[in-house]
Amino acid sequence: MGLVAVMFPRRILEEKLLALLAEDVGLGDVTTEAVVPSECTAQAEVISKADGFVAGMEEVTILAEALGLDVDCQVSDGEKITNGQVLMKLAGDAATILTVERTMLNLLSRMSGIATATKSLAEKIRKAKLKTRVAATRKSAPGLLYFDKKAVSVGGGDPHRLHLDDLILIKDNHIVVAGSMAEAVKRAKQNGSFSKKIEVEVATPEDALKAADLGVDIVMLDNFSPVKIEELMKQWKKKDFSRILLEASGGITADNLLDYAATGVDVISLGELTHSVKVVDISLEIVSTA
Amino acid sequence: MGLVAVMFPRRILEEKLLALLAEDVGLGDVTTEAVVPSECTAQAEVISKADGFVAGMEEVTILAEALGLDVDCQVSDGEKITNGQVLMKLAGDAATILTVERTMLNLLSRMSGIATATKSLAEKIRKAKLKTRVAATRKSAPGLLYFDKKAVSVGGGDPHRLHLDDLILIKDNHIVVAGSMAEAVKRAKQNGSFSKKIEVEVATPEDALKAADLGVDIVMLDNFSPVKIEELMKQWKKKDFSRILLEASGGITADNLLDYAATGVDVISLGELTHSVKVVDISLEIVSTA
Amino acid sequence: MGLVAVMFPRRILEEKLLALLAEDVGLGDVTTEAVVPSECTAQAEVISKADGFVAGMEEVTILAEALGLDVDCQVSDGEKITNGQVLMKLAGDAATILTVERTMLNLLSRMSGIATATKSLAEKIRKAKLKTRVAATRKSAPGLLYFDKKAVSVGGGDPHRLHLDDLILIKDNHIVVAGSMAEAVKRAKQNGSFSKKIEVEVATPEDALKAADLGVDIVMLDNFSPVKIEELMKQWKKKDFSRILLEASGGITADNLLDYAATGVDVISLGELTHSVKVVDISLEIVSTA
Amino acid sequence: MGLVAVMFPRRILEEKLLALLAEDVGLGDVTTEAVVPSECTAQAEVISKADGFVAGMEEVTILAEALGLDVDCQVSDGEKITNGQVLMKLAGDAATILTVERTMLNLLSRMSGIATATKSLAEKIRKAKLKTRVAATRKSAPGLLYFDKKAVSVGGGDPHRLHLDDLILIKDNHIVVAGSMAEAVKRAKQNGSFSKKIEVEVATPEDALKAADLGVDIVMLDNFSPVKIEELMKQWKKKDFSRILLEASGGITADNLLDYAATGVDVISLGELTHSVKVVDISLEIVSTA
Amino acid sequence: MGLVAVMFPRRILEEKLLALLAEDVGLGDVTTEAVVPSECTAQAEVISKADGFVAGMEEVTILAEALGLDVDCQVSDGEKITNGQVLMKLAGDAATILTVERTMLNLLSRMSGIATATKSLAEKIRKAKLKTRVAATRKSAPGLLYFDKKAVSVGGGDPHRLHLDDLILIKDNHIVVAGSMAEAVKRAKQNGSFSKKIEVEVATPEDALKAADLGVDIVMLDNFSPVKIEELMKQWKKKDFSRILLEASGGITADNLLDYAATGVDVISLGELTHSVKVVDISLEIVSTA
Amino acid sequence: MGLVAVMFPRRILEEKLLALLAEDVGLGDVTTEAVVPSECTAQAEVISKADGFVAGMEEVTILAEALGLDVDCQVSDGEKITNGQVLMKLAGDAATILTVERTMLNLLSRMSGIATATKSLAEKIRKAKLKTRVAATRKSAPGLLYFDKKAVSVGGGDPHRLHLDDLILIKDNHIVVAGSMAEAVKRAKQNGSFSKKIEVEVATPEDALKAADLGVDIVMLDNFSPVKIEELMKQWKKKDFSRILLEASGGITADNLLDYAATGVDVISLGELTHSVKVVDISLEIVSTA
Repeated sequence: MGLVAVMFPRRILEEKLLALLAEDVGLGDVTTEAVVPSECTAQAEVISKADGFVAGMEEVTILAEALGLDVDCQVSDGEKITNGQVLMKLAGDAATILTVERTMLNLLSRMSGIATATKSLAEKIRKAKLKTRVAATRKSAPGLLYFDKKAVSVGGGDPHRLHLDDLILIKDNHIVVAGSMAEAVKRAKQNGSFSKKIEVEVATPEDALKAADLGVDIVMLDNFSPVKIEELMKQWKKKDFSRILLEASGGITADNLLDYAATGVDVISLGELTHSVKVVDISLEIVSTA
Repeated sequence: MGLVAVMFPRRILEEKLLALLAEDVGLGDVTTEAVVPSECTAQAEVISKADGFVAGMEEVTILAEALGLDVDCQVSDGEKITNGQVLMKLAGDAATILTVERTMLNLLSRMSGIATATKSLAEKIRKAKLKTRVAATRKSAPGLLYFDKKAVSVGGGDPHRLHLDDLILIKDNHIVVAGSMAEAVKRAKQNGSFSKKIEVEVATPEDALKAADLGVDIVMLDNFSPVKIEELMKQWKKKDFSRILLEASGGITADNLLDYAATGVDVISLGELTHSVKVVDISLEIVSTA
Repeated sequence: MGLVAVMFPRRILEEKLLALLAEDVGLGDVTTEAVVPSECTAQAEVISKADGFVAGMEEVTILAEALGLDVDCQVSDGEKITNGQVLMKLAGDAATILTVERTMLNLLSRMSGIATATKSLAEKIRKAKLKTRVAATRKSAPGLLYFDKKAVSVGGGDPHRLHLDDLILIKDNHIVVAGSMAEAVKRAKQNGSFSKKIEVEVATPEDALKAADLGVDIVMLDNFSPVKIEELMKQWKKKDFSRILLEASGGITADNLLDYAATGVDVISLGELTHSVKVVDISLEIVSTA
Repeated sequence: MGLVAVMFPRRILEEKLLALLAEDVGLGDVTTEAVVPSECTAQAEVISKADGFVAGMEEVTILAEALGLDVDCQVSDGEKITNGQVLMKLAGDAATILTVERTMLNLLSRMSGIATATKSLAEKIRKAKLKTRVAATRKSAPGLLYFDKKAVSVGGGDPHRLHLDDLILIKDNHIVVAGSMAEAVKRAKQNGSFSKKIEVEVATPEDALKAADLGVDIVMLDNFSPVKIEELMKQWKKKDFSRILLEASGGITADNLLDYAATGVDVISLGELTHSVKVVDISLEIVSTA
Repeated sequence: MGLVAVMFPRRILEEKLLALLAEDVGLGDVTTEAVVPSECTAQAEVISKADGFVAGMEEVTILAEALGLDVDCQVSDGEKITNGQVLMKLAGDAATILTVERTMLNLLSRMSGIATATKSLAEKIRKAKLKTRVAATRKSAPGLLYFDKKAVSVGGGDPHRLHLDDLILIKDNHIVVAGSMAEAVKRAKQNGSFSKKIEVEVATPEDALKAADLGVDIVMLDNFSPVKIEELMKQWKKKDFSRILLEASGGITADNLLDYAATGVDVISLGELTHSVKVVDISLEIVSTA
Repeated sequence: MGLVAVMFPRRILEEKLLALLAEDVGLGDVTTEAVVPSECTAQAEVISKADGFVAGMEEVTILAEALGLDVDCQVSDGEKITNGQVLMKLAGDAATILTVERTMLNLLSRMSGIATATKSLAEKIRKAKLKTRVAATRKSAPGLLYFDKKAVSVGGGDPHRLHLDDLILIKDNHIVVAGSMAEAVKRAKQNGSFSKKIEVEVATPEDALKAADLGVDIVMLDNFSPVKIEELMKQWKKKDFSRILLEASGGITADNLLDYAATGVDVISLGELTHSVKVVDISLEIVSTA
């Protein structure tokens, strides 16, 4: 149903997750080591403290299992969750649960925060019977491209390009360096691989039409108002540019989202989805020990 | 003046920063490679698009210089910045500037967002002539402990423990596993190193007093109202516990911050400082090429 | 002029190159350590022992400079070289030159071998006044995607997708798993990001036309004869599919290359360019010491 | 029977193999993610498309098993294989099979190509009832010393030194730097560890005899004709140098191999075995899904 | 009973241990590969060749199990061992046992050496009914902080700070740079996090008292004689500084240990525990093969 | 003059050294950060607190320079040093000097300890006009093979094999697994590369002679008394085995060293050189600040 973005072999993801844990552990979890009796086992529950949509279940399951814990997921990535709901049951070595707790919760609460924000926008468009895709940008937290993009996908959004190697996206600064949009696009078509799409960012309807004439695959409308996009759309249909995708970006909020979507643009991208995340509060509670 | 938290030798920080860049580059910046004429140099400006306090200048300077760019900082970490202000001038290979642009901006805008939020709370307390410290938690974005804690420090906050190896912090789950608070603290004092402080999280004033009696260094008051803290304070003074630090945590917002600070607690810690960051919008513009 | 593929910030490439060197050095170059007098400096020349086109000059320059050697390039990547020609002059610590010699030559001779093979095919097509691009595949030596793709680009070829994250390329095995080509393409359009092209591999002209009808961006003709492609081309023009790219792959050699190119396919891809490389023999000679 | 060269604990080899896969995956296999239904399992066969000798079965088995796939090997490293033969059956998660397919095939086809070339030369010598060893050099693909040397061993060749830390091999450039062969050997004997052999490369029979007089363990005859070697052999026997090994190198091909072997040299080394590999074509086919 | 210091999730420790092994293996264990018949299994015993206290059992068990060996421990970390005692039984692939033997023994013999030295001092104090803790310093072998500190803990010592991020320890050089002890402590209290203790090194009783007045948590008495400490203790009690810990360091040996402990200092730290280790001789013997 | 063992390109060594530092720094040097005024520079001296021979000067110079410090060496590796002597002057950023101090001293004091012990034995033999080499084993501190072997070389010792890939050394356990010494040596000669020496450990004179008959390059006499070796020597000369090296190992101390050397064995190896190091006490003092 939704878009799901990126796929890592489990062992490669495991390494990434263990590296996150290792940073948090440093030279040892001094609290757990001092306080937890040896050979103590425990059962724990991961519990949502807010409503939202969950993401990161797959990632934290892999991390917990890599440390030898038994994991029993009560929900799957992308599902709706409510305040008080148990998301996951954990069992195993008590010290291990306590040491990995924060790394698991940090992943889960951030990814769920991204998925929840994405889902709320995507649902709004779906309910209005519109087809525009909600997409992320590369404005993620540094180093978290994989997790942030994955969470957008889980929330029903489009991850957009994953990083710098999978799309030729000519932005304003590239045009300044190349001398003109025409020159930049010409160079991209000549030097870029046939295997990649070419997208250009434009600031005016005139430039959007010019870009389409130059034969790009996608045009990004930077900071266009819905009205301006509607006017462009008339030209777009006249010129039979329908196979060239239009992406609106800049100044788009939950409030004006439907105005943008109603213009018929193919994609609406928002940096806020990943750069200014409001986490879903999730906690872990030890429920029994042995 | 403010607290500054952590210190990395430059070369070690450089490796961390290059790893962030490498994730974004993947197997190559296909846009820049196709579009930028070889041997082209450029000058660029990093410009704030909002008001706030800047953090991350040191980090992005190290990254840019590691790639051979000339960096001319116009502000220092911790300074106030305003919409439209030039923060930094860059000069050098145009392709390099374009490839590193997003990694630099992601770092700078997130760290400045954290510093700005921290500073606004810390200033509020300072203006009220109170002495309470505003502190972060370990609820950072996964893998970003160094950068998130550094930004809190730049904003005049206390980074709190950096990760799991530098403080014995006994939370509710540790107490469940140990059987009781008394047992947990006893174990911590017996097994923990003399070189580390011992902090305990409590849910009631009674437990706070009991923890103090047990000889801990810091007591964390979890979800106490200001009124409840004030009552506790009376007992605290009676018992002459003034050298035991009190940290309030949970349910604290910009709105009720001063109510908490006015109770006389030593530290107020907020997960939101690092888990739900609102970035400061910052952009980079190529201003000339050669 | 030619296509150049991928761009790495120098410092990231440096790390990759030093890792190659480290494998070769192990716990130390025991010959150099024993034999070379300390504080001895030398001048050396890197000399071609065959005709061809050079690639890898940029990479070995970065490696040598990272070790503190002075490098004076006599040719640039992509230039024609002849037997006996001096490609590069090196000066500096004699022990360092001797230790890095083989890693430099292995890189240079393999990358030049790839560039030479690519160039010979690309030139053949260019001289026939045809426009077909010669492209690589992912059939590289394990771990050498960056260097092998870069060498293809230097030789005037198209690197094709760099790895698994930059193109949706549906091959026969994907179709088996999805159940049918129609289902596979439907899923790709629904689940894949708008930012990526979709390519499908087909074994018959009928499937090629069906794929085009399904709206893919590129069709890969697997093991088609030139005659079969020509017949397909007639349908292709009738159906006005000209904006859908055609890639011929399988069974193409230097001998029949022009037959394929003459059909008007947009791209000819050959695994041999990178999986069965014939190196250009290149050696290093110490010319003086001090 | 044959020489087998190098031994890695499985877990260390696993890390190397996962790193090769990680480069190919980048931020995710976008095709598999989009096209493969979740929870789909498959059975696949790895099939040879040419005759030869197989190598790399051990390596790809370790990689596939590390990803959770079931592996059923139909042949062992070093065995003869023929066009159409099933080498391995795989079963497990369909997405995982499709993601790892190319990395497995790249390893297997390259290593089998090296083993096949080595075996054809080694067999030629064995059939002529001669005892000369066929050996590799350090002219491998960059970074592939382990895999290339292992494949030579599987093919019945001698891996020669593995890298720079396991043999003192004084080549022409070392002699130039040391001032003379006598000085270089003297330094090697004085400064080198007793635990390592000393080999010297020579260009004339006179130097070969001089090297033997200096007490080296191995003499490498660089670009000697078979006739010249035969003449040297007479002196060699006269001087009773039989315990000093002779290695012929340079200008040796399949055609003149037996002429060289017939001279009685102990070792014949060829850079082509690893620097200019012709792969054995091997493919993977999904045979059923569930 | 004793202090146990640091806790690593098993998988993170596994990576550290495999890295130690990888350095020793290089490009392969050429002896085992040549000499051991394939598919040979063996049983082996790890045997102590001296009396002492064992440490490292946990670490070498994790390493051996990571390589697929069966491990049967006969003693636990911290237990007394005697010459000739079997510490561990191993079973599994013979080649793997032989390859990992030295890395296991190097860990076990060094960690046991540290634990034995620590235990002998700690027991001496315990038998004298004194409460002083024996502590390590950061004077470990380079890169072995985790293992050296862990071994001290196993031996009943206090690991002291684990590295530079968990204690503010102001030494003589910091005081020189800050200008004065008072200034250094003032800066530490102002700029350091509330979550960390502050310790100061002093060279005279006067400075010890001054440090206590400044409000530090721990005072390190550098090269004080027991007599001088006793005199200080009188002032200490008078001033009611009992909650400030005293650490004696410098010039302390097994011979004068009790003189120091009898002064009532809280901690005695000795660099020798980790910088000049006398290993416990431990060997491995193959007892059967199959 | 002495043996110098292993040679690393500087940049590769730099990475190793920075990794050692990174472990010690963790998430930041909290003392230096709090206490050192920003932009403060300092001059420091590294001073020996004991007599001995210095090693590690090259390594700590590379580390300090990598961090931007100016280094002025007053002695070179291998030179005699005395209590109170200034070994090195450092200048630069005060915080950097304080952060790197302990890592530098740990390296320098351990490596100097190894060199001093080695030198004292090697000199004893040299003064007795004997030619036996003093050699290390693989019994180093875990992970420190490079530094420990380098220090032995600096002290005039032979590093012996560097790790498992550079010598076929058949020990008692290998013989047990192979079935007999004869079988083990036969397999080594058949399967091992011609480029490596073969050494066998023996427990009796009979086995020593048998090993020589089997054609090995080196025989290790395990726990032989000098008398027993002398008797063996008579047979050795009779059989004309002089080109086969003899290594004595086990039970050798400073006291009986000359007895062993006087037997005429080529090599005496001692695990104690690297497994039970007594460091040379070396300290760092800030001498001025600005």
